[in-house]
Amino acid sequence: MARLPATPHHIACLGGGHGLFQTLLAARDLDSEKISAIVTVADDGGSSGRLRRELDLIPPGDLRMALAALADDGEQEGLWATTLQHRFGGTGALAGHAVGNLLIAGLTEVVGEMQEALDIVARLTRSHGRVYPVVEQPLDIEAEVAGLDEDPTVMRPVRGQVAVATTPGNVRRVRILPQAPAANPAALEALSRADFITLGPGSWFTSVIPHVLVPDIVDAINASSAPRVVVLNLSAEPGETHGFSAERHVQVLAQHAAGLHIDRIVVDSAAPLADTEKKYLQRAADSLGAAVVFAEVSAQDEDGGRRNLHDPAKLARVFGEIYRGEV
Amino acid sequence: MARLPATPHHIACLGGGHGLFQTLLAARDLDSEKISAIVTVADDGGSSGRLRRELDLIPPGDLRMALAALADDGEQEGLWATTLQHRFGGTGALAGHAVGNLLIAGLTEVVGEMQEALDIVARLTRSHGRVYPVVEQPLDIEAEVAGLDEDPTVMRPVRGQVAVATTPGNVRRVRILPQAPAANPAALEALSRADFITLGPGSWFTSVIPHVLVPDIVDAINASSAPRVVVLNLSAEPGETHGFSAERHVQVLAQHAAGLHIDRIVVDSAAPLADTEKKYLQRAADSLGAAVVFAEVSAQDEDGGRRNLHDPAKLARVFGEIYRGEV
Repeated sequence: MARLPATPHHIACLGGGHGLFQTLLAARDLDSEKISAIVTVADDGGSSGRLRRELDLIPPGDLRMALAALADDGEQEGLWATTLQHRFGGTGALAGHAVGNLLIAGLTEVVGEMQEALDIVARLTRSHGRVYPVVEQPLDIEAEVAGLDEDPTVMRPVRGQVAVATTPGNVRRVRILPQAPAANPAALEALSRADFITLGPGSWFTSVIPHVLVPDIVDAINASSAPRVVVLNLSAEPGETHGFSAERHVQVLAQHAAGLHIDRIVVDSAAPLADTEKKYLQRAADSLGAAVVFAEVSAQDEDGGRRNLHDPAKLARVFGEIYRGEV
Repeated sequence: MARLPATPHHIACLGGGHGLFQTLLAARDLDSEKISAIVTVADDGGSSGRLRRELDLIPPGDLRMALAALADDGEQEGLWATTLQHRFGGTGALAGHAVGNLLIAGLTEVVGEMQEALDIVARLTRSHGRVYPVVEQPLDIEAEVAGLDEDPTVMRPVRGQVAVATTPGNVRRVRILPQAPAANPAALEALSRADFITLGPGSWFTSVIPHVLVPDIVDAINASSAPRVVVLNLSAEPGETHGFSAERHVQVLAQHAAGLHIDRIVVDSAAPLADTEKKYLQRAADSLGAAVVFAEVSAQDEDGGRRNLHDPAKLARVFGEIYRGEV
């Protein structure tokens, strides 16, 4: 593939889950020399949640998925990426555990630090980048949720990533516990060296906003001279952002991170907004100092329909355009 | 280290558990170009037993231990060997599972065959050799045990490796189920190419004798022109060989493998036998066609005492002497 005329040298991507996975594929598509994945650590469900509780560990699932996105197995044809992601089946004690989670957990016990364990797995998988837990301890998410009582003005706390992501109520605000934790110094170092920074897409309240509840991370983003780009979700998610407009996504991000500076917000143009909606969206973006960039970034299904998934090549293209100041 | 004047090019070691581990260290010490570990697959206890039952898998524990013995991590200072052997602690669903067992199990599910999974782990650990399950399916061990009833002539069947290894009775005979299984063709290929073959030491009824209950293996050993060496245990084991003399070890091996040809039986000289005992031992060895070689092969503790563990360097020395026809 021909190298794009000018692309980021070092791209740092903040997020978690499937959203971060797609962004990291886009970063690989950009052919950047360095990719840093800075990953949320608040998961309490599934294999990660079980390992977290059993071994008192940073939940490894989002970190594992980032490593799988960055894996380059060369001759082995995706072997290690597939193995990291493989989940044991059946109905026994291992059912549902991802092999990569167990490997990261075991290596962490052996070498004593999860960052070192992640770097070992990165070498094993000939990774295109490094993967950092945003904070070097497990976090809990607690949300204020409306609509769980008959009285709609009553707010109830909902604790835990899974509970927040699946609440039938309306999430108004989240916080992380412990509050204002110190960031992983290695993640801050990566942010300070990056010449392109992305945040999102992903589960808004549980994978994206937790990053900006870490003061060191907001400070590092604000101190950077790199383009700082938020990638908006393609649609509202059932549960945590049910019924949210694009504008509302930006609003709640800004509400949770007073003083956060963002340069561009990437919004999919394949689902066009009315002019009024665009106006409100830009107004919300103004509170972050950001310009909205409309670009087709959603993947298509076989019939040309819009999938609820970012297309890495399309995302890479708009990242390149932003980097070169074209949009 | 200076290379010994003439050492085996390809050494094949049959066994399981800690006994095979020490023999493989000896094989490494010999600086052979190829090492093949041919490993029992009848374990039903601990991490292996749990994985075997939960995932319907060849029990990986003895295979993992062989891989750990053969691992050469180079710059990584034993990292992968340590990680393979590391067991999760705590009291949860993972407690006691060796990380290497989980990795082998996961890779086997991904690639579909345990032999391929073992070869992948061998590459990961820059292994000095290859590790083969002796048979490509899990085996069960069933023993006829005397002394469990008040009437000492009553024999009772005891089923399972753990049950046999720990029975308070006297094991008279074992069989494997299914009976007379086909050997792993890759293991037979390795045996046919080896120019030095070892069997034992190890849990006699559950790690050593099961190999000679596989007819293909006996045929391959008998067809080989390589020196075929049995390494006797340093002492009787509580449970399965309680009270066994050296002679009795050889007798039961011969009873289980009619027609097996062995060239040398290595017996530790650090615990000297009386002349009568030596005579009976050689008489038992005759039934296998073997000469007894007395050599100091036990490890010493700090005070110079004899440990119940073979010393790899001492074993390697006697292997070299046997290979060159010096003993």
